[in-house]
Amino acid sequence: MAFQYQLLHNDLSTRARLGRMLTAHGPVDTPVFAPVGTQATVKTLTPAEIEEAGATLVLANTYHLYLRPGAGIVQRLGGLHRFMGWERPILTDSGGFQVFSLEGLRRVDDEGVTFRSHIDGSEHRLTPEKAIEIQEQLGADIIMAFDQCAEPMDRAGAEAAMRRTHAWADRCLAAHRRADQALFGIVQGGAFADLRAESAYVLSEMPFAGMAIGGLAVGEPKEVTWAMVDVTVPCLPATRPRYLMGVGSPEDLMEGVARGIDVFDSVLPTRLARNGAVFTRRGRLNLRNARFAEDAAPIEEHCGCYTCRHFSRAYLRHLLMAGEVLGLVLNSIHNVAFLTGLMSEVRAAIAEDRFAVLRDQFLSSYTPAPEEERLRQRDAYRERRARERSGPEDK
Amino acid sequence: MAFQYQLLHNDLSTRARLGRMLTAHGPVDTPVFAPVGTQATVKTLTPAEIEEAGATLVLANTYHLYLRPGAGIVQRLGGLHRFMGWERPILTDSGGFQVFSLEGLRRVDDEGVTFRSHIDGSEHRLTPEKAIEIQEQLGADIIMAFDQCAEPMDRAGAEAAMRRTHAWADRCLAAHRRADQALFGIVQGGAFADLRAESAYVLSEMPFAGMAIGGLAVGEPKEVTWAMVDVTVPCLPATRPRYLMGVGSPEDLMEGVARGIDVFDSVLPTRLARNGAVFTRRGRLNLRNARFAEDAAPIEEHCGCYTCRHFSRAYLRHLLMAGEVLGLVLNSIHNVAFLTGLMSEVRAAIAEDRFAVLRDQFLSSYTPAPEEERLRQRDAYRERRARERSGPEDK
Repeated sequence: MAFQYQLLHNDLSTRARLGRMLTAHGPVDTPVFAPVGTQATVKTLTPAEIEEAGATLVLANTYHLYLRPGAGIVQRLGGLHRFMGWERPILTDSGGFQVFSLEGLRRVDDEGVTFRSHIDGSEHRLTPEKAIEIQEQLGADIIMAFDQCAEPMDRAGAEAAMRRTHAWADRCLAAHRRADQALFGIVQGGAFADLRAESAYVLSEMPFAGMAIGGLAVGEPKEVTWAMVDVTVPCLPATRPRYLMGVGSPEDLMEGVARGIDVFDSVLPTRLARNGAVFTRRGRLNLRNARFAEDAAPIEEHCGCYTCRHFSRAYLRHLLMAGEVLGLVLNSIHNVAFLTGLMSEVRAAIAEDRFAVLRDQFLSSYTPAPEEERLRQRDAYRERRARERSGPEDK
Repeated sequence: MAFQYQLLHNDLSTRARLGRMLTAHGPVDTPVFAPVGTQATVKTLTPAEIEEAGATLVLANTYHLYLRPGAGIVQRLGGLHRFMGWERPILTDSGGFQVFSLEGLRRVDDEGVTFRSHIDGSEHRLTPEKAIEIQEQLGADIIMAFDQCAEPMDRAGAEAAMRRTHAWADRCLAAHRRADQALFGIVQGGAFADLRAESAYVLSEMPFAGMAIGGLAVGEPKEVTWAMVDVTVPCLPATRPRYLMGVGSPEDLMEGVARGIDVFDSVLPTRLARNGAVFTRRGRLNLRNARFAEDAAPIEEHCGCYTCRHFSRAYLRHLLMAGEVLGLVLNSIHNVAFLTGLMSEVRAAIAEDRFAVLRDQFLSSYTPAPEEERLRQRDAYRERRARERSGPEDK
């Protein structure tokens, strides 16, 4: 079945919109949050748990799967859906983001990127054609054009990366063959409004099934992120879904939806979960905190997720303190369910033209992690990854 | 509801028997294999997964839960069933086995054992009365007397430990209060037939609800284990369930059932799973092996477990090679389901007086891990634990 996007309703007082993507593996109601399954597994969760947590779309990383186990193996085993036991829609990225985060290990030219594997140091080359070929072997329902992500504040670099991204976009479209896969283009342009608008216009002229906004949420201030989204969205065709890559905090989902974004993905809910941090309507809790040692309440009252239906904060804290894997599993279930549940509320609110009220209510009671804390955690994470030589960054 | 054991059928050609234990949290058909949830979690599995894997009884460790989170906390949170979200029967050990494995960290006298926590070095004391008190706080359906486990080959040590175990058994019975908990006694006596028989007779005279055989499967040769079981079982009353502690390989379950054992527990299925080793009817497979890289088959054809219904050996190998937690989860599900499924077949065979045929068929096609490999893995495990100072040994 060919991909289709149905725009169902525009919110009256914001740019939020209700829609549905029809894919070869079923429908996805939008706005949607997609958890990330970097290595063909949403970390710690079974497909049954992912589905029960309300996810309808998951993302997998081309870079990782290309290196291990290899796209040919996945193809011969029946494709990514069968391989990972997830029969609902899947989106793969192009590998571009990971490759460009491999500092010191990659060399870019107009043809493509040569890089070294973070696993064994072996040399590989990704081009637009190769990125499409790999994604066709993996077999996701939505695949992404190969783009160049640059430092957002460097004008010359951002402009060069944008032009290269446009040239590569043409080559990706030319290389794209499988009719059951929808190919999305990726807007670049760094932190520069004129570049973002240009990129959006240029790519919108090309026959992409959907439009992504890339190169944001990579460390720049939030105001810059939203300013770039505000410039970009009006330049995109209303008839195609819009995907803001790598964004997934509850407050950012609200801000993004209000600006007309339909699709989000992020490792945030599962990564936070593995650090012991869980979402509530009032903000994050860190379950390692001693004050939860005898707390018989669930993470959140009235949350319908498996974790909140069965376990106390005290038990979850015990699992974390004892180093038990089940703690990571149960926290991940809750955090994914929290975001998918939030998006479900968002869709219901848009349908009734009351999204602005929902957003304001949510943001007035939800205290985001302080920016300082957010940056501290990001840096700690980057350092740890560098220490572990555990490869490129996942957003 | 008071505990009850119903002996339903004796196999015609072996000592195997079919029975049912009625507990405050429901029935347990025997022979049964109980997976171990050391720290109030069967490692990596949710209660929903444990139940789907066919487990009807799980074990939790008093030593671990006493130290962390503390038995009082578990009690105030509603007891172990509620704490860990497992509403079916639970068995707790007495803490004795763990305390006696804390070499260099414990001091034993006739009153009890003084030991240091492996977590923070703090000093604690366990006595028969204290072990019962803790187990009453935890609230399992089946609780164990506090016993002394000794080196099986040292006659004087084994005899002294046995006599102390008998004295402590009396004190445990006197301390035992909760009518909804069944207290089991533990036969000791090392590797000496006359001591084993004496211990079985002495403890059988006491009003225990069930009889365990302790101090075996601690490194002695298998022939010794089975010789001691062969001596002990005929000295135990037929009207009470018999529990062989710490035994759980498929071949040992068959041998134990044939000798009249009703209850088994072991960390083996979950520990092997985390090492990448999974059970099949022909023997263990190590899924890290390169030959599984493109193997589209499930671990075992016709296995009905969640893992085998959805995933290939190639995917499981990928998860292991990529260091993904889901690999541990899926392997654990399979290994627990394999043993519970085997016990289900065993019960059906006993009911039809064809257990000996089932055992012979099973053992003729199942290749156990070589003794040498088994000892090597055990030693590697002990060394790793010693290095990690991760505490006492779990069987």
